[in-house]
Amino acid sequence: MSAFDAVDLIRTKRDGGSLSDDQVDWLVGAYTRGSIADEQMSAYLMAVFFRGMVADELARWTRAMIESGVRRDLSTVDRPTVDKHSTGGVGDKITLPLAPLVAACGAAVPQLSGRGLGHTGGTLDKLESIAGWRAVLSHQEYLRQLRDVGAVVCAAGDDLAPADRRLYALRDVTATVESLPLIASSIMSKKIAEGAAALVLDVKVGSGAFMKDEASARALAAAMVELGAAHGVRTVALLTAMDTPLGRTAGNALEVAEATEVLAGGGPDDVVRLTLVLAREMLDLAGLPDADPEPALRSGAAMDRWRAMIAAQGGDPDAPLPAARERHVVVAPASGPLSRLDALAIGVAAWRLGAGRARKEDPVSAGAGVVMHAKPGDVVSAGDPLLELHSDDPERIERVVADIESSYTIAGVHHPPQPLVIDRIEAR
Amino acid sequence: MSAFDAVDLIRTKRDGGSLSDDQVDWLVGAYTRGSIADEQMSAYLMAVFFRGMVADELARWTRAMIESGVRRDLSTVDRPTVDKHSTGGVGDKITLPLAPLVAACGAAVPQLSGRGLGHTGGTLDKLESIAGWRAVLSHQEYLRQLRDVGAVVCAAGDDLAPADRRLYALRDVTATVESLPLIASSIMSKKIAEGAAALVLDVKVGSGAFMKDEASARALAAAMVELGAAHGVRTVALLTAMDTPLGRTAGNALEVAEATEVLAGGGPDDVVRLTLVLAREMLDLAGLPDADPEPALRSGAAMDRWRAMIAAQGGDPDAPLPAARERHVVVAPASGPLSRLDALAIGVAAWRLGAGRARKEDPVSAGAGVVMHAKPGDVVSAGDPLLELHSDDPERIERVVADIESSYTIAGVHHPPQPLVIDRIEAR
Repeated sequence: MSAFDAVDLIRTKRDGGSLSDDQVDWLVGAYTRGSIADEQMSAYLMAVFFRGMVADELARWTRAMIESGVRRDLSTVDRPTVDKHSTGGVGDKITLPLAPLVAACGAAVPQLSGRGLGHTGGTLDKLESIAGWRAVLSHQEYLRQLRDVGAVVCAAGDDLAPADRRLYALRDVTATVESLPLIASSIMSKKIAEGAAALVLDVKVGSGAFMKDEASARALAAAMVELGAAHGVRTVALLTAMDTPLGRTAGNALEVAEATEVLAGGGPDDVVRLTLVLAREMLDLAGLPDADPEPALRSGAAMDRWRAMIAAQGGDPDAPLPAARERHVVVAPASGPLSRLDALAIGVAAWRLGAGRARKEDPVSAGAGVVMHAKPGDVVSAGDPLLELHSDDPERIERVVADIESSYTIAGVHHPPQPLVIDRIEAR
Repeated sequence: MSAFDAVDLIRTKRDGGSLSDDQVDWLVGAYTRGSIADEQMSAYLMAVFFRGMVADELARWTRAMIESGVRRDLSTVDRPTVDKHSTGGVGDKITLPLAPLVAACGAAVPQLSGRGLGHTGGTLDKLESIAGWRAVLSHQEYLRQLRDVGAVVCAAGDDLAPADRRLYALRDVTATVESLPLIASSIMSKKIAEGAAALVLDVKVGSGAFMKDEASARALAAAMVELGAAHGVRTVALLTAMDTPLGRTAGNALEVAEATEVLAGGGPDDVVRLTLVLAREMLDLAGLPDADPEPALRSGAAMDRWRAMIAAQGGDPDAPLPAARERHVVVAPASGPLSRLDALAIGVAAWRLGAGRARKEDPVSAGAGVVMHAKPGDVVSAGDPLLELHSDDPERIERVVADIESSYTIAGVHHPPQPLVIDRIEAR
């Protein structure tokens, strides 16, 4: 006997009501066990798209998703644990230098990650461009690496919020991805189940981000910070700009190369700045407010930690990275300040060149992507190289070249760039 | 290769857009063939619940549903064809006297009908309480009866709007039944495919009806009348009151008995009046404006047609009707005018006594139901019989008795009853 009737719960949400704790537990549990049909859950999710969830309902929904699997206990790791999650942006390779940097400063970063879908890349896809590196670790390997190296980025196991895996697959085919409570619960159920004691959220805002406007991003950040607090995870969110790509590369191996530049003390200024800002937030939340990440980056301590982290997962940090077979340089058609380089357009271009996947079964190309020779604020001369398109397939390059002009503007007027960090949001 | 992507179409509707003709044809066709998943269609239907359809889109959606099967050609029937459809009410047995009455006046009534679900009864369930009567006819039998008798009420075949059968089953389990365009297209696709040249819609308004308020009922009626006109079916809708049950019985055999009283020249006044009003509308639309149904009812001509109609489908019009094993009389607890007898409450009581089904697989009890000894406007004395509950199961009677008091009000103030016919709606 079921305790509730699925049709009644769909009708309640459809008509603007809220589910009780017991109803939420039943709905999420029964769906995860397969005793509620996909067509009922998708109707429920579409009703949530229109009606939302009240705060208590969202907290319970997230709790039910966590409790569909195990919540990991990392108390045997003898350092403070802290993770970072980005809602996804173009050229966002920050995890790559950030995890070893924070580890070098004394904390442990237990990042269970996913693959990319659509125009934003996945961290696992990027790391897989390193020869020998493997995303899947046993729980013993994972804990050992966390203790010995202090940083792990690996694939989330099937035991972590399995409700989210089923729900996400369903949302993907039913146009119910873009809902604040569904996004917040999906992210936070996995991050809370992961077991880190603290979490810094990088909530992206702008054309290349999931949230196009600041108000939506701010609401998402606030909801996630509250969910973290409700589950005893110290959580802070930064709203950061994603109108233009981060750094000078978008693509898997291209971004790994840029990340190692940052770890070697160089790299693009915006990537370095955001890495340090996020590292300071993470170290603060980890109870290490006096740890200073900047010297750890300059001294090579973070680079050492990176090499250990890659090697521990079978990767060769010295192996040459794969390169795409074909390159095409797009030159500036006019002279003047580059006033716009659109994150979404560059993300879609990298994706079409082979760096991303349309369906989750698709492979990705390690070498494909876009190198940006100029960023907004730079002044270019007609004929200067502007963008470099990398792909294994010349036809893909041709197709991307055909509409790449709409991705940038060379204007007479120079606009000062938006600040990278827009705001910082804590639990109330 | 599919011409469209289901996720794109769901997103379009979710965000308030309309589908093109080609998109509607593809969506309905692909769903009927099983190449769009139930979870995608249910998300689409929930988006329609919130966003509606524009008039052109609804017309095309209905056309696509009709074209998922065959549209019957009744041109070989040598009388004008006209049908009636009621959106469903408590005690609504009007089809039973109406179809033979209109046939007796020279038109042919080709009614393909359904079974009841929930608190309103189904015409086929009522007729099946007659010994030997069968709902399923071959197309040859159907046409022969239409020519020879002039009235058929039988089960719709699988070839009639099969898209509606799949969609209705899906709506039923996903809380997407209550949507104006989905209701209008469901009713009209079947009625248009049935092949009658004209159609009178009885759109019920009130507690016992699908549409609780007049504005919704009026909008539904207008949409259906336009859909009929767009497909060349002369269509008129009457808005009629359904705050109190029609007649003095709710239940299968109980309603058949009341219908035969009407055909014998007696019966409750409201049932007689509504039968005659609807008969006149049908005869007008059939091009027989001079045919007068009242004498046909008084003379026994309609009764003869009823007996022929029942006999043609294997039924014995003289066989005693089944009676429930148990009866319980509810007496008036006070004296005064009966000011309210709630249609929904009586419908639910009849359903619980066994007259209706909760799921479409359930059987119904032929004898179960409610007999109403008083109707609003009648003055009762304390101790007078008010309601009679019929069931095969004494426990069901006990459960219904427990809250039957909320179904009626004996008040000091007498309210004049609402007019039965509220309005008449034609195509623009």
